[in-house]
Amino acid sequence: MQKINIALCGTGNVGSSFIDLILQSKEKIKSNYNVELNLNLIGSRKGKINNSDFKGKIETDILKVPMSNEVDIIVELIGGTEISYELAKLSLKNDKHFVTANKSLIAEKGQELFKLASDRNLHIGFEASVGGGIPILRTIRDGLISSKINWFKGILNGTSNYILSKMYLEKQTYEDALKSAQKLGFAEPDPSLDINGTDAAQKTAILSFLSFSGKISPRDIFFDGIKHIEPIDMEYGKELGYVIKPISIGFNEEEKLLLGSFPAFIQQDEIIANVNFETNVIEVNSKNTNSTAFQGPGAGGYPTSSSVMNDILDIANGKVFDYSNLMRKIEVNNFDEFITKRYLRLMVKDESGVVAEISKLIAEKDLSIDNLIQKEKNKTEDIIPIVIMLGECKESLVSLLINELENLNQVKGSIQHIRFIE
Amino acid sequence: MQKINIALCGTGNVGSSFIDLILQSKEKIKSNYNVELNLNLIGSRKGKINNSDFKGKIETDILKVPMSNEVDIIVELIGGTEISYELAKLSLKNDKHFVTANKSLIAEKGQELFKLASDRNLHIGFEASVGGGIPILRTIRDGLISSKINWFKGILNGTSNYILSKMYLEKQTYEDALKSAQKLGFAEPDPSLDINGTDAAQKTAILSFLSFSGKISPRDIFFDGIKHIEPIDMEYGKELGYVIKPISIGFNEEEKLLLGSFPAFIQQDEIIANVNFETNVIEVNSKNTNSTAFQGPGAGGYPTSSSVMNDILDIANGKVFDYSNLMRKIEVNNFDEFITKRYLRLMVKDESGVVAEISKLIAEKDLSIDNLIQKEKNKTEDIIPIVIMLGECKESLVSLLINELENLNQVKGSIQHIRFIE
Repeated sequence: MQKINIALCGTGNVGSSFIDLILQSKEKIKSNYNVELNLNLIGSRKGKINNSDFKGKIETDILKVPMSNEVDIIVELIGGTEISYELAKLSLKNDKHFVTANKSLIAEKGQELFKLASDRNLHIGFEASVGGGIPILRTIRDGLISSKINWFKGILNGTSNYILSKMYLEKQTYEDALKSAQKLGFAEPDPSLDINGTDAAQKTAILSFLSFSGKISPRDIFFDGIKHIEPIDMEYGKELGYVIKPISIGFNEEEKLLLGSFPAFIQQDEIIANVNFETNVIEVNSKNTNSTAFQGPGAGGYPTSSSVMNDILDIANGKVFDYSNLMRKIEVNNFDEFITKRYLRLMVKDESGVVAEISKLIAEKDLSIDNLIQKEKNKTEDIIPIVIMLGECKESLVSLLINELENLNQVKGSIQHIRFIE
Repeated sequence: MQKINIALCGTGNVGSSFIDLILQSKEKIKSNYNVELNLNLIGSRKGKINNSDFKGKIETDILKVPMSNEVDIIVELIGGTEISYELAKLSLKNDKHFVTANKSLIAEKGQELFKLASDRNLHIGFEASVGGGIPILRTIRDGLISSKINWFKGILNGTSNYILSKMYLEKQTYEDALKSAQKLGFAEPDPSLDINGTDAAQKTAILSFLSFSGKISPRDIFFDGIKHIEPIDMEYGKELGYVIKPISIGFNEEEKLLLGSFPAFIQQDEIIANVNFETNVIEVNSKNTNSTAFQGPGAGGYPTSSSVMNDILDIANGKVFDYSNLMRKIEVNNFDEFITKRYLRLMVKDESGVVAEISKLIAEKDLSIDNLIQKEKNKTEDIIPIVIMLGECKESLVSLLINELENLNQVKGSIQHIRFIE
């Protein structure tokens, strides 16, 4: 029977669930996999943990954990890219395998760490960094190893999906939806990295790197947050058969990638449109298996720990994968090149001739209008919405158009621009 | 670099795709996994194959393949339980690992084969036997190893889902839908095992065995086919917000299992309700990760081969799992005990008092009627449908009731009974 010694660093929500899970499942793993997983060291600045079943040592100086001679795998559940980055390097340099749930660390420092691990014949596990409890990374890595991936699309940020779902399905305001997400633990006290798209962009970088076997930096990912989405946009979309979701995409078009994370309209009958609240979903299309979709909890202590356990089992079982091989150079298109249909909502002063002026600017750019909606006027208001659906057109051209439209005297405030994802 | 020699038996649609896939992906696997997969022997009764890239030997006597000294893993893509069963035993007895896509073989003979493999420290891979290209078995096995599974439900038979989808979404007749499925290769020339529920029941047995770690025989699975489903039932369901799908279920209620594969009504907004045509889906609910759902192609040469490749990679990488450990005794409830809501459609002679008589029989059994629909009469017909939705009640009691109702003079033909799955 093989015995693997494990050290955990980080004892927050996920860390505590992990301790519970590994102690709980020890016997089952022993009999099914013929491996004994022994949690014998915990790095915790507080110096104590809330689990009386843990019988190992506690180390308050986290960066001393990798120096232990009694550890084979180090599990990092701290987050951020500061101490976790030091910990990762020290772990590998001290010949320990490294498992993490940290998307920022992998997105920002993955390439360096994979190289370091490969040179020393060590393994890095990061299944929990994308999609929490959904085993998406291993599925892309193994399941699709024998197939070329054409594209993926998905919802990678539970907080944003929760808020937009509450607004759409329960007519809540953005503020109330956020408060409810915070109350339930689906949003941090400071939710900005979730809301502004940073979190989803980091996950998109990791998915892209695996899916397209290429060097991808989080800076290659165009991203936009959900804060500017208003109920009125949801209503207009609904009439046309679309739902707004916080979508992440990776398209490989003839070896040029198009990558992004932003709120977008998708058709009501698509898989992704029906995945609500905090649930995540990833749909992957590959040459040999067509479309496969995976949905489940994208965060949370036990789902995340479950993915961490999988990585540990892979390493314990000797299932090795050298991620440093996936670092080929691949071209990432500037997002300005993105061609899709678009929704524009302008708030205009209700004067005659305004539609004509808007249409003229659009026509001058050779853009086609699929649909123009101007609702019956409410006589008490003199600022009214006009919604325009543009046919397929380039991001760069739309940016120019929006600029010109915003300069019109009759147009008030900024123009709402939402992309369609087919 | 580790070198693994592979023999393939069976060169039909899946077998041919497999040959293509393993030859195509050899280099990629070499660089990413540090394993060389060498297809060096093919068992084919015809004695020739259609792939000029294959440079190994062809053996026309399939049962001689396991005797080869130059093979580490035998891949069985023949189907059925006759020659494939012999092949499996011979492979293991000759110290070869065994990988198969054969659900009948695993459902019927799995227990014996797992024991044989365990005794000889060999591995059996059968990912492709359920859900084709969807990596569901490994997900249950690994991803959820540290968590207790409460239930699964899904669509495991693509043929049945295709036919019901065509009938529901495109108003086709059963016969036309079947013809179209056959034309597209989603149904066999003799589709009976798919249509009558046998195929889904075998897959349910395999999923149940893995999910609940217990001895399960295909005979433990209640099953029913889709042939009796009529468009009129779909229409009634639709009005109430339900869709008919070919559902497979495994519920673990306090260590008593309830297992079945049958057409059932599910709510329109459930994941499974929106998975159409030949696509399969499996939703798994576990203690630690809540609900996770996986959907994708349930059959087809390349998706199936992709799953076979995964099993080979696991074995090549030394990722071992002893399935003979999952054979604990577990109680399977008789399906007569199944409690759920039910839809009954009776064709009755349009006479006064008929509803009263029906209601009386229902009341005598202490069953509650959630809904009774009797549409306005069409004056040209004297046989009209009456639809009754019963509140939660036991299978055994409903069987009795149906018997009594069918004995009423006014009731013509047999009564349509469709279960609801929440």
